[in-house]
Amino acid sequence: MGNWIVHFHEGDRTMKTLLGGKGANLAEMTKLGLPIPPGFTVTTEACRSFYEGGMRMPDGLFDEIVAALAHLEERKGMKFGHAERPLLVSVRSGSVTSMPGMMDTILNLGLNDESVQGLARQTGNAAFASDSYRRFIQMYGNVVLGIPTNDFEKIVKKEKEMRGAEKDQDVTHEAWTAVIEQYKRLVLERTGAAFPQDVREQLEQAVKAVFASWNNARAKVYRKAYGIPDDQGTAVNVQAMVFGNLGEGSGTGVLFSRNPSTGEQALYGEYLLNAQGEDVVAGVRTPKRIEELAGDLPDVHERLRDVANRLERHYKDMQDIEFTVEQGELYVLQTRNGKRTAQAAVKIAVDLMNEGLLSGEEAVQRIEPMHLDRLLHPSIRESSDMVVAATGLPASPGAATGVVVLDADRSVQWRADGRRVILVTQETTPEDIHGVIASEGVLTSRGGMTSHAAVVARGMGKPCVCGCESVTVDLEARAIRIGAVVVREGEWISIDGATGRVILGKADIREPEMTEELAELLRTADGIRTMKIYANADNPHDAAIARHFGAEGIGLCRTEHMFMSGSRLAVFRDMILAECSTERQAHLDTILPMQQSDFEGIFEAMDGLPVTVRLLDPPLHEFLPDLEQLLGERRQLSANGAAESALATMDRLIVKVRAMCESNPMLGLRGCRLGLMFPEIYDMQLSAIFLAAKACLQRGIRVKPEIMIPLVGHPNELKGMAERIDSIAERTLGEDRALCRYKKGTMIEVPRAALVAGDIAVHAEFFSFGTNDLTQMTFGYSRDDAEGKFLNKYIDQGILPENPFETLDESGVGQLIEMAVLKGKSTRPTLKAGVCGEHGGERRSILYCHRVGLDYVSCSPFRVPYARIAAAQAALLTGGEKRVEPVHA
Amino acid sequence: MGNWIVHFHEGDRTMKTLLGGKGANLAEMTKLGLPIPPGFTVTTEACRSFYEGGMRMPDGLFDEIVAALAHLEERKGMKFGHAERPLLVSVRSGSVTSMPGMMDTILNLGLNDESVQGLARQTGNAAFASDSYRRFIQMYGNVVLGIPTNDFEKIVKKEKEMRGAEKDQDVTHEAWTAVIEQYKRLVLERTGAAFPQDVREQLEQAVKAVFASWNNARAKVYRKAYGIPDDQGTAVNVQAMVFGNLGEGSGTGVLFSRNPSTGEQALYGEYLLNAQGEDVVAGVRTPKRIEELAGDLPDVHERLRDVANRLERHYKDMQDIEFTVEQGELYVLQTRNGKRTAQAAVKIAVDLMNEGLLSGEEAVQRIEPMHLDRLLHPSIRESSDMVVAATGLPASPGAATGVVVLDADRSVQWRADGRRVILVTQETTPEDIHGVIASEGVLTSRGGMTSHAAVVARGMGKPCVCGCESVTVDLEARAIRIGAVVVREGEWISIDGATGRVILGKADIREPEMTEELAELLRTADGIRTMKIYANADNPHDAAIARHFGAEGIGLCRTEHMFMSGSRLAVFRDMILAECSTERQAHLDTILPMQQSDFEGIFEAMDGLPVTVRLLDPPLHEFLPDLEQLLGERRQLSANGAAESALATMDRLIVKVRAMCESNPMLGLRGCRLGLMFPEIYDMQLSAIFLAAKACLQRGIRVKPEIMIPLVGHPNELKGMAERIDSIAERTLGEDRALCRYKKGTMIEVPRAALVAGDIAVHAEFFSFGTNDLTQMTFGYSRDDAEGKFLNKYIDQGILPENPFETLDESGVGQLIEMAVLKGKSTRPTLKAGVCGEHGGERRSILYCHRVGLDYVSCSPFRVPYARIAAAQAALLTGGEKRVEPVHA
Repeated sequence: MGNWIVHFHEGDRTMKTLLGGKGANLAEMTKLGLPIPPGFTVTTEACRSFYEGGMRMPDGLFDEIVAALAHLEERKGMKFGHAERPLLVSVRSGSVTSMPGMMDTILNLGLNDESVQGLARQTGNAAFASDSYRRFIQMYGNVVLGIPTNDFEKIVKKEKEMRGAEKDQDVTHEAWTAVIEQYKRLVLERTGAAFPQDVREQLEQAVKAVFASWNNARAKVYRKAYGIPDDQGTAVNVQAMVFGNLGEGSGTGVLFSRNPSTGEQALYGEYLLNAQGEDVVAGVRTPKRIEELAGDLPDVHERLRDVANRLERHYKDMQDIEFTVEQGELYVLQTRNGKRTAQAAVKIAVDLMNEGLLSGEEAVQRIEPMHLDRLLHPSIRESSDMVVAATGLPASPGAATGVVVLDADRSVQWRADGRRVILVTQETTPEDIHGVIASEGVLTSRGGMTSHAAVVARGMGKPCVCGCESVTVDLEARAIRIGAVVVREGEWISIDGATGRVILGKADIREPEMTEELAELLRTADGIRTMKIYANADNPHDAAIARHFGAEGIGLCRTEHMFMSGSRLAVFRDMILAECSTERQAHLDTILPMQQSDFEGIFEAMDGLPVTVRLLDPPLHEFLPDLEQLLGERRQLSANGAAESALATMDRLIVKVRAMCESNPMLGLRGCRLGLMFPEIYDMQLSAIFLAAKACLQRGIRVKPEIMIPLVGHPNELKGMAERIDSIAERTLGEDRALCRYKKGTMIEVPRAALVAGDIAVHAEFFSFGTNDLTQMTFGYSRDDAEGKFLNKYIDQGILPENPFETLDESGVGQLIEMAVLKGKSTRPTLKAGVCGEHGGERRSILYCHRVGLDYVSCSPFRVPYARIAAAQAALLTGGEKRVEPVHA
Repeated sequence: MGNWIVHFHEGDRTMKTLLGGKGANLAEMTKLGLPIPPGFTVTTEACRSFYEGGMRMPDGLFDEIVAALAHLEERKGMKFGHAERPLLVSVRSGSVTSMPGMMDTILNLGLNDESVQGLARQTGNAAFASDSYRRFIQMYGNVVLGIPTNDFEKIVKKEKEMRGAEKDQDVTHEAWTAVIEQYKRLVLERTGAAFPQDVREQLEQAVKAVFASWNNARAKVYRKAYGIPDDQGTAVNVQAMVFGNLGEGSGTGVLFSRNPSTGEQALYGEYLLNAQGEDVVAGVRTPKRIEELAGDLPDVHERLRDVANRLERHYKDMQDIEFTVEQGELYVLQTRNGKRTAQAAVKIAVDLMNEGLLSGEEAVQRIEPMHLDRLLHPSIRESSDMVVAATGLPASPGAATGVVVLDADRSVQWRADGRRVILVTQETTPEDIHGVIASEGVLTSRGGMTSHAAVVARGMGKPCVCGCESVTVDLEARAIRIGAVVVREGEWISIDGATGRVILGKADIREPEMTEELAELLRTADGIRTMKIYANADNPHDAAIARHFGAEGIGLCRTEHMFMSGSRLAVFRDMILAECSTERQAHLDTILPMQQSDFEGIFEAMDGLPVTVRLLDPPLHEFLPDLEQLLGERRQLSANGAAESALATMDRLIVKVRAMCESNPMLGLRGCRLGLMFPEIYDMQLSAIFLAAKACLQRGIRVKPEIMIPLVGHPNELKGMAERIDSIAERTLGEDRALCRYKKGTMIEVPRAALVAGDIAVHAEFFSFGTNDLTQMTFGYSRDDAEGKFLNKYIDQGILPENPFETLDESGVGQLIEMAVLKGKSTRPTLKAGVCGEHGGERRSILYCHRVGLDYVSCSPFRVPYARIAAAQAALLTGGEKRVEPVHA
């Protein structure tokens, strides 16, 4: 090992930072005794030194390269640049973090007018030798000298046409020789210097060129996109060439140790005989499936199977292997952990666990939770002829296809006719809820990730694309316009809520499935994680789904969602508009049995598990008609000469709605403020909860209601409410009270609540962090306004590292959460604390929640499996308080 | 001293908690050797014990009373209930915190059918004796036995009528005797028992009745209103009676040691000869001015002067003294610190300081800052015939009178005609600004303490009453309705912005004045305080006022206010509506010289002092026309058959305004978000600042601009901006840059900013806490929505102790402020930190700011003197790091 160089036989896979991924794995395989052509790695330190010195090779590097080369010559019994037994090498980049195709490679280095003769003699194949030489000039000319590849290709093309050769294989030695002459002239012409015959100069220039390619435009863009540090630098691997194009006993290919698409335990890959790697990539010839190699070269096939097996056991993961066969001799040129589909990832992890290669912890750590999202929602089977017409916000995962409908009523009609529909509107309101239910998915042209459509669709597990501004809805023409494209109502369209894509026509939808492997993996994760996973569910149906996916309770049941459907909305609206509390009470009396029956259904679905019910939260005017629209209707009535009394009724409505308008409804009369101003509303909800509990208890269902007061900012808000809860429980449950162990708690979503959490915990048995509102108020962002108006630009411009509504802002909002947990638990050590915002279903936020000691996260039912895995990974990352062995089914 | 009783000669003023205010002062005066009728105090402990024991006298108390009484008998040479030389006593309540008139008193106790004879013989005045007896029966009957006073009065009235007596003095002994008989019958009738002849029983019942009066309805209400603890209890003073109604050598009166209205150093008070205290209160006879006593009873006048002087020097404050003269003998019955007007308070404090009675610190501590508010604004000279028609929010202090006008244009016209006007509207908008300027004051029927009208009026130091919902503006009738009252445009009205009162007609307005005493007091305060006092000022005129009142800098110059007037608003609006940045730049080029000239004026006014300029902060749509109004105009245009092009222009405007609508503008595109999205706006403002600085420097003015970026929540927002400031300063100032020491800083008004203040301080040389926004976001309250919809009810219901927008919420918002100061100063020890919200002018908040180590507070120019006093008091309260001697002019 020199200062700047490490031979393959000197390194190992732990030295990835110094040697890059490719170099470290070549060293590791060398150590394993696998057939690796000898070589050495110029380290990333050398690269950094190259840049620090102003793009000059560091002192001593070239001497070390020359010495290392001597060692190679010795190993191979060849001589670099020799006219008889020339040693040829490849010069490849190899960065620490994989950056596929971003940097440069030069093959066949060491050829010149003399050594090409030696190669011809050695291989007995003059055409091969001259082809190799012309390939080298072309690569070197491009990479080192900056001459466009196309300028070389034009020469080959002309020569082939002239000689009537179709494929490269048909080109003769003479023709290649003519091409070489023209190549050399091109080089002289463009650079003013002859193509270098000094092979050491070739090597020096090639290494420098690979270093330099670290900073080419596409590499920089890639690094920025993937957050790879600019000063990491690349290593350079110099390795003796082997040739897959020395006849039918030679070849090259790519091999996966398992099927990367399904995870099946069988070799998977393809190869070409008599070809070099580039030929596989170029796609001129169709590669053969790896199984066929058993026929073509049975020994090699056997050895490959053995190599794949050894590598997999060694790396404990499915391997993606590049190999070359030179005249019957197998060489491995690269191995790495293979990329795979979601389905394969799960199957492979579980299979490796069952094969004893991985522990349960390791298997769980292998899974990208994002994979589960794809597995558990319908997805689009990608195809090349798909037309993506627009991209909106990926508001609710899953994919759907259906015919366009432009209003909720028609959705219901067409659905009843057995048609699949996609509801497309400017934005949805609570009045459209039946349309959302009837549709396969929703596409809106306005509204953000928390718009009505987005929230409702996520709750229902339906795909939704929101705020797709290039979609215009033309109700008169009954059509939508997407740029220049017009899609009429009734024509097919598809949406992908995971990516925000809007696709013309009927896409091929792949249905989700819960495989046996996935179930096993989730069980394993359950044994590891310490945080509980709850779900957000507002009705018995969602609660049942949540339980099916493994939820251990309901962390958020939004009682207002119970009123968002047609007939209920009307009663609710009357209640809000009531002139006095007597009238309000009358409407509440109508509402009570509806809420009660919802609660009964939910308690039944969650039998034995806690159900956190949040009392009414949103500003009342969210349930009211739009003022501008009302004024329009008023004008219409007046123009049509409506009766005075009708106008008067309308006017009263308008006055009421106007009075309820707020300049900042987010910060207005909502949450417990409502409950304190109109106590009869919360009283009704509490009665409904306890009546439902009583009814369930009589049927032998174990109910555990946890009553949650929203938007508390001062302990006094909760204090009075807690007394009220007890008194209604007392009154309603009577002697059943002992059987119904309910809890009282609060959302922590106003910054002040976190600051005075110690005082609030006096009255609260649990805290649930409403991280969406908490983020809004801590940043002073209204999510709906911010995302369209500045937040995305903030992220683009790097002012914010990421969207705090997607990934919890640990350095700001996190301080409040940590403070609240600390203060809350110091007042009440048994305090239960969790997150019920959307962050509860996001991986990094889940890791964070675990780290700060939360007891649970609550997320949408469809995201529960995702959260189970993420919570287990969190436990493992922080040292895993609980170590477990894999759980078998 | 017994367990429950303290004789006057045993106590002193330090025992106020035990003896109540009256008792402690009687003891103190006895110790001083002043002529105090002997007596003793039943302690507040006895009262608490009375309540704890279920309204029973504690064991031993009555024995102690009897023993104390024996002592009194001995001192006076009289006998309680004796037929010859009867001792009479008064039984008076005396609580720790003054509760004037809330509890009961009984005089002449000790009279019965026998002792009344003795009193007659002793005084040689049978009519006096029988009058005293009937007075006693009446008081005892009312206080102890609960018979309404009116039932007794009716008997006296009938008797007087029957006998043709007009005044009490005209009633004969016989007549009183007849009254006494009827009184006794009344008592027997109502209570079923005869009026008690046992004087000990009289005393026991009287003491119990006074204890019981602690819990009468009016006392409870009073305690609740003034925050007096219910378990404090009252003491009871039993004291030998002296009589002011024993002929022309007797009398009674009240004396202030200085004039409580002006503070002048001369006795002030009134007296009646031959009268008891009640007679002065009853107002049947007109009391004489105290100066006349020098003619009536010269010796007594001389002694009184001496007593007043001794008490004032002893208590080091102006005294309010009650006295009685019995046959030429002066007795003092009470002394306490006298209530006084604002003007008197200042003059007395300064005079006492100059007389060497008070140190500078003590003089400053004597001032209620609220007093200064009255002194420095016009106020209404109270009068009994004033009709208060309504009360709104006290939005901007001061008082004004003028004729009602209903729109801004007419305000300007009428003002030009020389009329004083009060602008009355539903609410004001930036378009009404010329009307506000032309008016004496503003009255609105809608909008809270931060509404446009309120903010603008406070800034201009004009009185304003906001959100006065009982006022309806009827533009058609050109009148306003206040309940049933109609005031037509052009009729007089008056408003009191300090109390929110709306007064019919032309009230008498007292103009403010800065007296020499006030100036001296402020200078003394300046020597004590350690916090600097800055002012909020947006134009040269306000800056000049601020400096006149002693501001040491501008803490907040709101650049958007510079655009709220007519012609400027139009240009600004065009700028906002610009379709592209080129068009926007053109409008900005028009605006630049306007801003520059404002800045020049402000820099000039503040020559040598810092001027904190906040770049544009509010959401842009605040400057735009109202959408509903625009839609109305659009329909009007269309109905009138306007040209297509006019309609198209209108439509473009509507689209633009609609696009700028935000659901929660408070949390939307404003502050630095605007500056980052439309950098050309801030660039213009920065150029204007530095061009103005350059121009001023050339005129020899010392400029110290401090540039403040609003709404920062992430350090990156400030980082880029700070670079921009430097580069524009560099470009604009050129070589003058060395002369212009500008600072860069930020508002801390988003909770996140406080949480990450350490990182923000890397880029900020100062923090200014925008406590209004910080309160809004920390509580999650939109002030405008909250105050009308729930905040006031929260305070009424005791959910919140007070309005956090008026008094800084120390336990919640305060945590963020303390955290930010700590983190900010730990990053940058030289960081300057202050408050520029409205809390900067509120006393308790100023005390808080001092306590947490802020460097300055900034408030409205008119509140600067108030803040100077409050800051000095803050320094004294926290131990006063700086002790100073009074500063003389």
